[in-house]
Amino acid sequence: MTNNIVGSSVARFDATAKVTGKAKYVDDFFVNDMLVGKVLRSPYAHAIVKNIDTSKAKALEGVEAVITYKDLPNIKFGTAGHPWSLDPAHRDIEDRLILTNKARFVGDAIAAVVAVDEIVASKALELIDVEYEVLEPIVKSEDALKENAPIIHEERPNNILSSFGSEIGNVEEDFKNADTIFEDSFETSIVQHCHMENHSTYAYVDSEDRIVIVSSTQIPHIVRRVVGQALGIAWGKIKVIKPYVGGGFGNKQDVVIEPLTAAMSLAVDGRPVKYTLDREECFIDTRTRHSMKIKFRTAVSKDGKLLSLDIKNLVNNGAYASHGHSVAMSAGGKFRGVYDFNSIKYSPTTVYTNLPAAGAMRGYGAPQMCYALESHIEDICRKLNMDSLEFRIKNFVTEGYVEPLSKNVVRAFALPECIEKGKELIKWDEKKREYKQYNAKNKDKKRGVGMACFSYFTGTHPVALEPAGARIVMNQDGSVQLQIGATEIGQGSDTVFGQMVAEILGLKIDMVHVISMQDTDVTPFDTGSYASRQTFVSGAAVKKCALEVKDKVLAFASSKCGLNSSELDIVDCQVVEKRLGRVICPLEEIAMESYYDRIKCCPITSDTSVNVRINSIAYGATFAAVEVDIATGKIEVLEIYNIHDSGMIMNPMLAEGQVHGGVSMGLGYALSEQMLFDEKTGKPLNNNLLDYKLQTIMDTPTIGSAFVEKYEPAGGFGQKSMGENTTVSPAPAVRNAVLDATGVAFNKIPMNPQSVFEKFKEVGLV
Amino acid sequence: MTNNIVGSSVARFDATAKVTGKAKYVDDFFVNDMLVGKVLRSPYAHAIVKNIDTSKAKALEGVEAVITYKDLPNIKFGTAGHPWSLDPAHRDIEDRLILTNKARFVGDAIAAVVAVDEIVASKALELIDVEYEVLEPIVKSEDALKENAPIIHEERPNNILSSFGSEIGNVEEDFKNADTIFEDSFETSIVQHCHMENHSTYAYVDSEDRIVIVSSTQIPHIVRRVVGQALGIAWGKIKVIKPYVGGGFGNKQDVVIEPLTAAMSLAVDGRPVKYTLDREECFIDTRTRHSMKIKFRTAVSKDGKLLSLDIKNLVNNGAYASHGHSVAMSAGGKFRGVYDFNSIKYSPTTVYTNLPAAGAMRGYGAPQMCYALESHIEDICRKLNMDSLEFRIKNFVTEGYVEPLSKNVVRAFALPECIEKGKELIKWDEKKREYKQYNAKNKDKKRGVGMACFSYFTGTHPVALEPAGARIVMNQDGSVQLQIGATEIGQGSDTVFGQMVAEILGLKIDMVHVISMQDTDVTPFDTGSYASRQTFVSGAAVKKCALEVKDKVLAFASSKCGLNSSELDIVDCQVVEKRLGRVICPLEEIAMESYYDRIKCCPITSDTSVNVRINSIAYGATFAAVEVDIATGKIEVLEIYNIHDSGMIMNPMLAEGQVHGGVSMGLGYALSEQMLFDEKTGKPLNNNLLDYKLQTIMDTPTIGSAFVEKYEPAGGFGQKSMGENTTVSPAPAVRNAVLDATGVAFNKIPMNPQSVFEKFKEVGLV
Repeated sequence: MTNNIVGSSVARFDATAKVTGKAKYVDDFFVNDMLVGKVLRSPYAHAIVKNIDTSKAKALEGVEAVITYKDLPNIKFGTAGHPWSLDPAHRDIEDRLILTNKARFVGDAIAAVVAVDEIVASKALELIDVEYEVLEPIVKSEDALKENAPIIHEERPNNILSSFGSEIGNVEEDFKNADTIFEDSFETSIVQHCHMENHSTYAYVDSEDRIVIVSSTQIPHIVRRVVGQALGIAWGKIKVIKPYVGGGFGNKQDVVIEPLTAAMSLAVDGRPVKYTLDREECFIDTRTRHSMKIKFRTAVSKDGKLLSLDIKNLVNNGAYASHGHSVAMSAGGKFRGVYDFNSIKYSPTTVYTNLPAAGAMRGYGAPQMCYALESHIEDICRKLNMDSLEFRIKNFVTEGYVEPLSKNVVRAFALPECIEKGKELIKWDEKKREYKQYNAKNKDKKRGVGMACFSYFTGTHPVALEPAGARIVMNQDGSVQLQIGATEIGQGSDTVFGQMVAEILGLKIDMVHVISMQDTDVTPFDTGSYASRQTFVSGAAVKKCALEVKDKVLAFASSKCGLNSSELDIVDCQVVEKRLGRVICPLEEIAMESYYDRIKCCPITSDTSVNVRINSIAYGATFAAVEVDIATGKIEVLEIYNIHDSGMIMNPMLAEGQVHGGVSMGLGYALSEQMLFDEKTGKPLNNNLLDYKLQTIMDTPTIGSAFVEKYEPAGGFGQKSMGENTTVSPAPAVRNAVLDATGVAFNKIPMNPQSVFEKFKEVGLV
Repeated sequence: MTNNIVGSSVARFDATAKVTGKAKYVDDFFVNDMLVGKVLRSPYAHAIVKNIDTSKAKALEGVEAVITYKDLPNIKFGTAGHPWSLDPAHRDIEDRLILTNKARFVGDAIAAVVAVDEIVASKALELIDVEYEVLEPIVKSEDALKENAPIIHEERPNNILSSFGSEIGNVEEDFKNADTIFEDSFETSIVQHCHMENHSTYAYVDSEDRIVIVSSTQIPHIVRRVVGQALGIAWGKIKVIKPYVGGGFGNKQDVVIEPLTAAMSLAVDGRPVKYTLDREECFIDTRTRHSMKIKFRTAVSKDGKLLSLDIKNLVNNGAYASHGHSVAMSAGGKFRGVYDFNSIKYSPTTVYTNLPAAGAMRGYGAPQMCYALESHIEDICRKLNMDSLEFRIKNFVTEGYVEPLSKNVVRAFALPECIEKGKELIKWDEKKREYKQYNAKNKDKKRGVGMACFSYFTGTHPVALEPAGARIVMNQDGSVQLQIGATEIGQGSDTVFGQMVAEILGLKIDMVHVISMQDTDVTPFDTGSYASRQTFVSGAAVKKCALEVKDKVLAFASSKCGLNSSELDIVDCQVVEKRLGRVICPLEEIAMESYYDRIKCCPITSDTSVNVRINSIAYGATFAAVEVDIATGKIEVLEIYNIHDSGMIMNPMLAEGQVHGGVSMGLGYALSEQMLFDEKTGKPLNNNLLDYKLQTIMDTPTIGSAFVEKYEPAGGFGQKSMGENTTVSPAPAVRNAVLDATGVAFNKIPMNPQSVFEKFKEVGLV
């Protein structure tokens, strides 16, 4: 660790490629004879396909194929981007067909057309006659549990995906001993990722009869597996290529359109077929964030000690399992690193409804739970008349804490320092005073400050497998290529991995060439980009790989100079004698000899994998100051700061970028975003970027960020998770600031002008 | 070795890709904004550029750049596709600039234009004004050595590239003791490879400022190095991709057009530029086969023992060094595995002339020397009135022979059996009788049989480094990808490597996916396809790599079943207990566990390299029967057989294909092919496929092949070289058959109707 490249704000490796347009996305892989696929979608949320007549569509000139469920293998498969499990009990629910004969949400894929262009394909869709038997749809999660509720999947007649939960400690006992018990309930809405690049894929069959899929995905190796499963084809017969990706946020941690695209290509003798969702389709037929209805019963001692937490969570999963109950479990797990409860009982129920399938989205259940819990904690403090910061800090875990459910260990804990930093940045105490005066003077506009904190795991251990792979090839000039299975989807992981390699090998940063495109044929295996695992888990593979390369370089050098490898190091492209700082030879000389020495010739490479069986708990807090327009219900965020304990920061500029994106997403979650459905029919009402109120730059305040860097021993460079973390706590911080400003507790998000106004009316403020 | 896949006629892996047009060649990598490069060539064989005015060309609409030597680094570089040497004394001569200010042959590259299309580029070439000072050219090799000969390269004022030679034993002594001394001289013509796909390359600069070159080459890793050297750029800043290649035969074992293509792209800010030679350009500005003038003095004892050989060889290298004297050295080396001479003195002189540069071509000097020597031997036998087969066999080396110059060892020697087989196939003795009668009866047409034999090394050890690399990735279903640095250029190496992997890993052949495209960023290092090294040298890497994978599979299996790895094997995709043949588990189960076992997870890969420091000597013979039309000088080959001792044959169908191609090329060499130049000006006279008389299918008899398979211990599968071997001995066999038919000894090839007629006239036959 000589260069201090890790920890510095190295410019993104893909910056030039992206701003010059040289970066290749799926759409840029133009193939001359490419056909276009389009999908006929159900207009009903719940309906059986009684009859389907594709003859007119097939007869249309320019139509190459029309397929329905009848043309495809009757294999149910799961789509979640999880590592496969050898244990059938740990596999995702397999409830999906590539094309269905029973529509389960408005937009469900009934038939597909492959045609010479989009216009012909669209015309052909209109020529498909479908006779539906319309069934009663379920829109609200409560309705799924009603007796005699319509059955969405025959395999689960009670509409419950799972109600598996957990209990640690003795909740009943603790409630008996409690001085006070607080109860409350919270509700979150369905939102969507809204990545810039919609799902886009093309597929063809190569001359070896293998299916090649180029896809905008976070998880190329998992896509390969799931396409194999969905089509009943050996996995090795499939090859997936991931070019640059225009964002995913979890929505591409799901195998959404690849199996159908492959099926489309197979339907036209393997010719290349492209299938790209438009924004309207992307809103309904990809994945959403689960809406949750969370109820707390919380036992507190009279001295303000959190004793026990009893959580019920009703989770609306939509029409298909996708990540299913995993998200509910994650919601009930990731927060546990913060407060030292004696006991926690978690009772989640994940149900099917006739809405678009909910899946993975940045935070994976944590934003919902953090919103609810940190609001609940704030309310408890108010009711106990205790300072909410002091109350929180008092109940925090300490280093050495072993989270009882996951057995994850708190090895580095800087959340108190984060809170200190947040207070300082937002001038907490001053604002508290000022705003009191301001609010006393102003009737129409009220100001307040609020905060919330969170814990977040790093990767999925011990729930799921954490494999990662890396390969390095050293060139004759000492520069290297790095191949990684981990996928760059905009987060900057390629850059951080490059920094790690440069750091370990003593290279200039421009001597590391990261192969950004994954190709499952040759890219080292890695399950992909999700769970904020890359810097930690895939970083472990990169570190191991670079150290192997370093060992090989030093072994060569040792054989030249006689000194033991352990006496040598690489600094600024020179092999040096560590103790004396004396230069032995340029790295380039070793690299050249590794290629061309008549006896020792053996080009230096390393091809490694790791199976990371540890987790580290990251922390953070959001501090927000808001002004609420009482008459209009409009909430303006005046200031907002995210302060993170993510261990050592690999690249401050990229980390700040994560904060900007995550907080913006969190503000949308708090204030404006919400997918709306007709409550009777389940029809989507705002599946476009005009009606779906994504935060724009006009809505977004300057976002402040800070990092309390404390070395995490489990991270190869002292690092912990960072990516998803940023979006977890903004919503409750804003909610608590609004509470501080107005005295009104919003237990449902988004707090858009309409809902705020209605609530103000309800409590008599307007 | 359980499947017997190695040794069977597995269909080419690329067969479907090639016949369906799915195989991608350089031309198929269409890039939208690609520019076209074209070159202004000198009309003079020897001239100095006094002045060059590109202003009119630059002003033409659609012209993006015009470059001359002034715009390029003044770095002289070598183009030969040899491994780089750490020892400056062992490097190729560096005598070339990308664009020159002194033309050294008609067609030398003076300036280059980059334009929007070919028409504009061609027009622009016409607008470049060059003022030349025309110098006297040297066309014949003898003229290069004359006193006061024009100097082609200032660095070598005597026009000699090298006259380095060798002597083993004591030639003078042996000649003193000889009973008979034979002297003779032979001459071969300049011929060309005539691969179907001309040289074609495109280059661009990527967003990391690295130069990416897609090229039809045999040697991607060497192209990378030489482009770096020619442009003075770090080698790691260059990336070379080799797609499918439409033949090379050594002409693409040279870095011919890539440095200029890269320079063209650099001249237009890194935009993609394509530079493809047309056939006329390919004839003059790539490489040719060296013409050689070989003189023998041979000492023989009275009992017919070959005692000593004194060879002089004047080698016409053309205008630039390219492979230079290496070819002369190879000509003087590769034949030495056949006859057990007491002593050999070899005195080659390789000279510059003002003709296109000679370089590597299938056989690398051996066809010239074999033609001369086997003709000479035949003549000696006739003079001694000895049976030429018996004479040869009597003088053969035996197993255990150590060739004194190279120290290569004859470990397996089946040349006598090859001769036996050849006699049998052509019905040697019967034909000898029949033809005697036939010739007695016919005045106009004469028939005869002839043969020739050869030895050929396998790869270049000990002259050059022999590194090779391979990487295998095992998929979840037990199928694998194989990445190899060795390049498929039509010879079928991908298929043979695939067979090796399938054999070792007990896989079905369609479970091995060979990555046919090399990319120097990630492809294991291998110097490329030349010297008939691939099956032997690269095959060693493939074998090592597959064995490592097998070890890993068996280690996994061992940990499951408790049996030692050494007790286990993989047969037909099952792990079995070797001794009992009992199935332990399917290979797929192991592969799945390697990916998904919670504890042992570690996907099975291997990334290996070898440095092969051994050689094996392959053998073979051609038997031919001809009919000579005395009046027209037309020679018809009635029957021809190549019989090879190439050790074990990896794929008989592919080996037969090599024989078909190699013999056809050998027949062209013997009978028709010849590049013609104006003797005064050095202007090419037949640089097109109409006037250059390549053998067509109409000229080619049915070609017979046979293989005497004797296990070579140095080959991983008992194999020796095979590819180039096939073209070495046809010419002398045909020449000796013509001698047998007519009594006329042709000591110069080609024996085309004109030269045969002239010779017949000279000796009074017509």
